[in-house]
Amino acid sequence: MKRAYKNDILLRLFEGDNIERPPVWLMRQAGRILPQYRAIRNNLSGFKELVETPELAAEVTVQPVDELGVDAAIIFSDILVIPEAMGLPYELIEKVGPRFPRTIQSAADIDALIEGEEAAHELQYVYNALDATKSLLDDRVPLIGFSGAPWTLFSYMLEGQGSKTFSKAKKFLYQEREASHRLLAKLTSTIIAYLNQKIEHGADVVQLFDSWAGVLNKPLYDEFCLPYLKQIIDGVQGAPLILFCRGAWFSLDDLAGLGSQALGIDWNMSIKPLREQVGSDIILQGNMDPCMLYAPTSEIGLEVDRICSAMGRNHIMNLGHGVYPDTPLAHVKFFVDQVKKYRY
Amino acid sequence: MKRAYKNDILLRLFEGDNIERPPVWLMRQAGRILPQYRAIRNNLSGFKELVETPELAAEVTVQPVDELGVDAAIIFSDILVIPEAMGLPYELIEKVGPRFPRTIQSAADIDALIEGEEAAHELQYVYNALDATKSLLDDRVPLIGFSGAPWTLFSYMLEGQGSKTFSKAKKFLYQEREASHRLLAKLTSTIIAYLNQKIEHGADVVQLFDSWAGVLNKPLYDEFCLPYLKQIIDGVQGAPLILFCRGAWFSLDDLAGLGSQALGIDWNMSIKPLREQVGSDIILQGNMDPCMLYAPTSEIGLEVDRICSAMGRNHIMNLGHGVYPDTPLAHVKFFVDQVKKYRY
Repeated sequence: MKRAYKNDILLRLFEGDNIERPPVWLMRQAGRILPQYRAIRNNLSGFKELVETPELAAEVTVQPVDELGVDAAIIFSDILVIPEAMGLPYELIEKVGPRFPRTIQSAADIDALIEGEEAAHELQYVYNALDATKSLLDDRVPLIGFSGAPWTLFSYMLEGQGSKTFSKAKKFLYQEREASHRLLAKLTSTIIAYLNQKIEHGADVVQLFDSWAGVLNKPLYDEFCLPYLKQIIDGVQGAPLILFCRGAWFSLDDLAGLGSQALGIDWNMSIKPLREQVGSDIILQGNMDPCMLYAPTSEIGLEVDRICSAMGRNHIMNLGHGVYPDTPLAHVKFFVDQVKKYRY
Repeated sequence: MKRAYKNDILLRLFEGDNIERPPVWLMRQAGRILPQYRAIRNNLSGFKELVETPELAAEVTVQPVDELGVDAAIIFSDILVIPEAMGLPYELIEKVGPRFPRTIQSAADIDALIEGEEAAHELQYVYNALDATKSLLDDRVPLIGFSGAPWTLFSYMLEGQGSKTFSKAKKFLYQEREASHRLLAKLTSTIIAYLNQKIEHGADVVQLFDSWAGVLNKPLYDEFCLPYLKQIIDGVQGAPLILFCRGAWFSLDDLAGLGSQALGIDWNMSIKPLREQVGSDIILQGNMDPCMLYAPTSEIGLEVDRICSAMGRNHIMNLGHGVYPDTPLAHVKFFVDQVKKYRY
């Protein structure tokens, strides 16, 4: 059922309306940049407690709507909930990052994982967080749901943590091709079921993050990523999808043709050649350098105007990466306000 | 003075000869992939002792010539010797990586650094290692010298260690533009003096590594990198220069026009569009995915042939990144042999 929002500029863009300015939100807008977030977080045992407690997850999801005036909320969660639901639990270690106590070592480890609806069913706490968020949002702005993409989740499941090179994950692609495809297929069926559940519970838009796309190249991306991204785009029903494959500059033509309503783009990409490449019809999301928010506000203002103007219509303003935790809050607010003042 | 080498295929390529196959060497060929290296390394207190002891550095530099049959040696050293020579000492912590006990925090820290000939003079142990290497090599193959590029060294000096985002270094670019240029200029004058000293001590070719190019974008690269790379290319005399800016796909046209004899390219780049972009005259070095060496040798063979054929003449075969420490030695040897069997 379509809902009417007080601020529906993001949905109007997806519906093809001639809106007056780009909608704006920030990746990682719910998080350490906000004092309200830190206050809640400091009372908890860890990040996972926040992810797994629907009322608290809802509260931090709504904070940036109150504090920053962004045009959408994005559910506070983590991409690693999916591997955990499939049978590979993760931990989040303070100031270090995610760790998997067990990793995928063999085809047998992959066979042991559950997938699809069965795995998605394990994530009831996420759906409860969406329900609680919708209630707190009270129809002010739409809610974005998200998932990691198959390759990015695969990488963490093989590496057990972040990596500069992701050489363990890539080694598996080269040495265990069949098993790699089996794991990517299991992730895909789970992601589809999970995103559809999120939409069922009120997500108005979904975003798919392929954060580690950039460690691959075109032949690897063609074989191990594109077919699964296509399956997800085709299988997710009832909400527009934003596809953000960070660093995948070598596969942009293919990504633009997969059928998603929007393409997230990172800060490395120059807008003019990109628009020439993908055309003016697809919505592009991004792409200010997150470090630009450290600059004086006068420069932030110029950069916002430059990007909005270069992008033209069919644009969602965002950074080209998640906002960094030490970004001055006043600069983030200035950024949002500047976009909201922009007119085509 | 030109020397005659038993294997001079790399130098003949730079001289424009019609050679029969691409020359081949590997970034990080002197290192943990070789049991001979590990035997020497295990007897030492740390990596820096190896870098700073000319006889030992020479010995590990020559090992891959003996063991792998590569067409060039590359001096065993570290890019961080330059910040140290300028006044900012580094440490190398086992299994963690480089650390700077002090980092650059302000313009005053930059003013305190020495530069140019004066800084390059501090690196006598490197020049002694080159002398010792030339003697051990006994004119078998040419010797490659190298340096980090200004931006990459700048990044480490600001961050104090590696980083996923290099947000401290980029913050400095955005907030302290003048001071950033001052540090980059000091690094540039030092790199020029250092590389010229290396050539003086027998380096036949030099390579400049801009390892962290990929965290910038075109406007930042235009302002903070290209002018300094150009100064270095113009200022280094007496040996051809290979410019390797990893991840700088957005500035390839500009890099190809800076006047270096060769361009290193990473494994993300597809050869056909790249050759169309930069033309067939410039020498390209690379670009096999280092993780491809984990694959069965039959696949390595096919990939070597594919790359050599797609590159055409004016090609130095190498990986698109340093060889990873856990790469099977037999596969590295197979790779080198396969290139040496290839014929145009």
